[in-house]
Amino acid sequence: MEQLENILSMMKKASTILANTSTDLRNSALLRIANNLQRKSTDIFEANNLDLMIAEKENLASPLLKRLKLDTDKLNTVIDGINSLIKLPDPINTVLAKTLLDDNLILTKITVPIGVIGVIFESRPDALIQIATLCLKSGNCAILKGGREALNTNKILTQIIVDSILEVSSDFNNTIYLIETREDVAKILQYSKYINLIIPRGSNEFVQYIQKNSAIPVLGHADGICHLFVDSNTDVDLAVKLTVDSKTQYVAVCNALETLLVHKDIAKIFLPVLKKEMDKKNTKLKGDKQTKEILPDIEDATEEDWKTEYLDYILSIKVVNDVYEAIDHINKYGSGHTDSIVTKNKENAAKFQALVDSASVLVNCSTRFSDGYRYGFGAEVGISTGKIHSRGPVGLDGLIIYKYLVEGDGQIVDDYSKGIKKFKHHRLV
Amino acid sequence: MEQLENILSMMKKASTILANTSTDLRNSALLRIANNLQRKSTDIFEANNLDLMIAEKENLASPLLKRLKLDTDKLNTVIDGINSLIKLPDPINTVLAKTLLDDNLILTKITVPIGVIGVIFESRPDALIQIATLCLKSGNCAILKGGREALNTNKILTQIIVDSILEVSSDFNNTIYLIETREDVAKILQYSKYINLIIPRGSNEFVQYIQKNSAIPVLGHADGICHLFVDSNTDVDLAVKLTVDSKTQYVAVCNALETLLVHKDIAKIFLPVLKKEMDKKNTKLKGDKQTKEILPDIEDATEEDWKTEYLDYILSIKVVNDVYEAIDHINKYGSGHTDSIVTKNKENAAKFQALVDSASVLVNCSTRFSDGYRYGFGAEVGISTGKIHSRGPVGLDGLIIYKYLVEGDGQIVDDYSKGIKKFKHHRLV
Repeated sequence: MEQLENILSMMKKASTILANTSTDLRNSALLRIANNLQRKSTDIFEANNLDLMIAEKENLASPLLKRLKLDTDKLNTVIDGINSLIKLPDPINTVLAKTLLDDNLILTKITVPIGVIGVIFESRPDALIQIATLCLKSGNCAILKGGREALNTNKILTQIIVDSILEVSSDFNNTIYLIETREDVAKILQYSKYINLIIPRGSNEFVQYIQKNSAIPVLGHADGICHLFVDSNTDVDLAVKLTVDSKTQYVAVCNALETLLVHKDIAKIFLPVLKKEMDKKNTKLKGDKQTKEILPDIEDATEEDWKTEYLDYILSIKVVNDVYEAIDHINKYGSGHTDSIVTKNKENAAKFQALVDSASVLVNCSTRFSDGYRYGFGAEVGISTGKIHSRGPVGLDGLIIYKYLVEGDGQIVDDYSKGIKKFKHHRLV
Repeated sequence: MEQLENILSMMKKASTILANTSTDLRNSALLRIANNLQRKSTDIFEANNLDLMIAEKENLASPLLKRLKLDTDKLNTVIDGINSLIKLPDPINTVLAKTLLDDNLILTKITVPIGVIGVIFESRPDALIQIATLCLKSGNCAILKGGREALNTNKILTQIIVDSILEVSSDFNNTIYLIETREDVAKILQYSKYINLIIPRGSNEFVQYIQKNSAIPVLGHADGICHLFVDSNTDVDLAVKLTVDSKTQYVAVCNALETLLVHKDIAKIFLPVLKKEMDKKNTKLKGDKQTKEILPDIEDATEEDWKTEYLDYILSIKVVNDVYEAIDHINKYGSGHTDSIVTKNKENAAKFQALVDSASVLVNCSTRFSDGYRYGFGAEVGISTGKIHSRGPVGLDGLIIYKYLVEGDGQIVDDYSKGIKKFKHHRLV
């Protein structure tokens, strides 16, 4: 057995021990991590400075450098996050249902951790702490791979986390492990017998690469092509306000607006007002033929634009005939992430929410609301555009599954097959 | 666009319409299917006889012929199943949670169908009816592929089902489709943009082939290697009774016992009694070294036996030192399906249920209980050994997911970012 397989096999064994640790023990470990991160902040910043120096030498782009930098503010935010996580209810060992199958034959469905979770993320080293602590809270082992450019920071963070949990109990042995190379990522994708779930946090291509190259289930989103549909019966100022917020409040995130759909009956009044506001925000507009009849100076939007997640100050615009054309466009080009309608027409709002096949379908509010924190989940594992297991913003719930326990006193199936005994199926919980 | 892709793209469109049909409309369609299957039974049996004739000519093995045969009893059972399905509560459009995010900003989490489900099953034509009606009840489109040997039966069944639902409403257009060739199966595995879930019902190799060759999530089980552990503190007669039922009540199913683990302190008394009963059932025993010291006449069990799902009158036996060795053996060689312990020791029972990482972990009852009908689910989609989405016997719940709806009156995220407004996050439902 090669080294990596050996580690994974030990993690699989460790996962059943971790799954059976008490809520208090896991919370103590989380508290220890929070304290040690605070205590060793100087060492952390030193390692992070080394990564930053190397990255600057290698001419890493400035947004990436910004993500790579771990300063006091970011560290405090992530430590606050751990303290909030401690206060959240334990997601495991909760009884979901209890049924009396027959006298003295009881079925119990309880929540349990998924097992071993592989998380592959980009340059942000604070993500490592977040993910590792979410896995710990939910009783899952975590195999982590961070960005190459954050290696020194990730190493010291992992060291502090592992040392902290082992100070609390040896039950946490082999529950967290950092892998360092791309080759190791390719390898772990093959180990479906040890790893139960992969959470990739990265580019579209990267997520698709993982989905295509592994039999391990993947939780995540490839794209965030979000739409806002401005219906005919709408307050123009409100529609402009929602468009501006959805597009420009934070352009680099998956729930930012990429394509605006405008009802033909309001386009002439709405679009010029919008253009003025978007100019103030230095946002470039691209439009289809009908949009350009109203805003002739903007660039053409092509088929390719409807499929593009700009993550930038660019917005594509299409004029549509009605709510159905808007829905069809979204279901065809959208990524099933988040789509919103602005309308005073309640019937259209209801149709839109019923027929748009996305994780989050909003009425009269910004697309930027679809987020675990804003939805009140307390902690966010990621956002899923898949339709299996978890969808939309995923809280701790996304890291758990259930198990069936049956307790009997000697029952055999043959008695029920022959009609000697009959099932009662009486729901207890 | 080639023909199959065209069909899948129409099914994807149809899935949003189907998702919005009323409970009554779907139940009417189910009732029509039940009635028409009854009414056209002569045509069905004719088509089935044709398949049987061809299969006999091709010397199909007799268990396969038995599965292929659709007689009055089997048809009535499946029609009864449809009538029970009609009575089950609608799994979609159920509110799972409702949260007041802020004044006039409400988040609702509701259940929705998954979308388009690909189901690939073996020779049993009754499975086609079962799967198609489960998908219909839960508002999912179904693309079906049955065994080649059942083609004529599957064709007429699909025709009756499609005609029935279209008699009820054109909203059911393009919701069910039968594909006929292996080549088409290989093709649909590539269409992750149209198909949301694959449910394979077939051999181990087949399920693994699908998992490795598709980015579409798979719900199912490859193997059912189930264990029974006979602890030291156990009533011997009870242990024998549970072993006999687990192994021989129906050997060809995934929840049948394959490996028996026996505590060393009870082996000498228990094994000879068991041998006598198993001889009566014509069940061949295979044992490890310690088992053979007690039952010298039986065959050797090798490493390969611990990994084998016999689905036959064969049982492998291993003597273990304690409950921990039993648990380790199960977590190493088992398939995470169903494992049971026979014991009077409550502490060991608790340890076993906590540490065995399987979908169903039982105490003092037969492994054969782990089944959707016996668990009281009313309908069974399949059994999953995966740890994502659904685990163990899967009812209609396995065919649904959720969607988030947010209704506001013009809220933007910028106000919350700047602290002008604050979230309330007050749980309403």
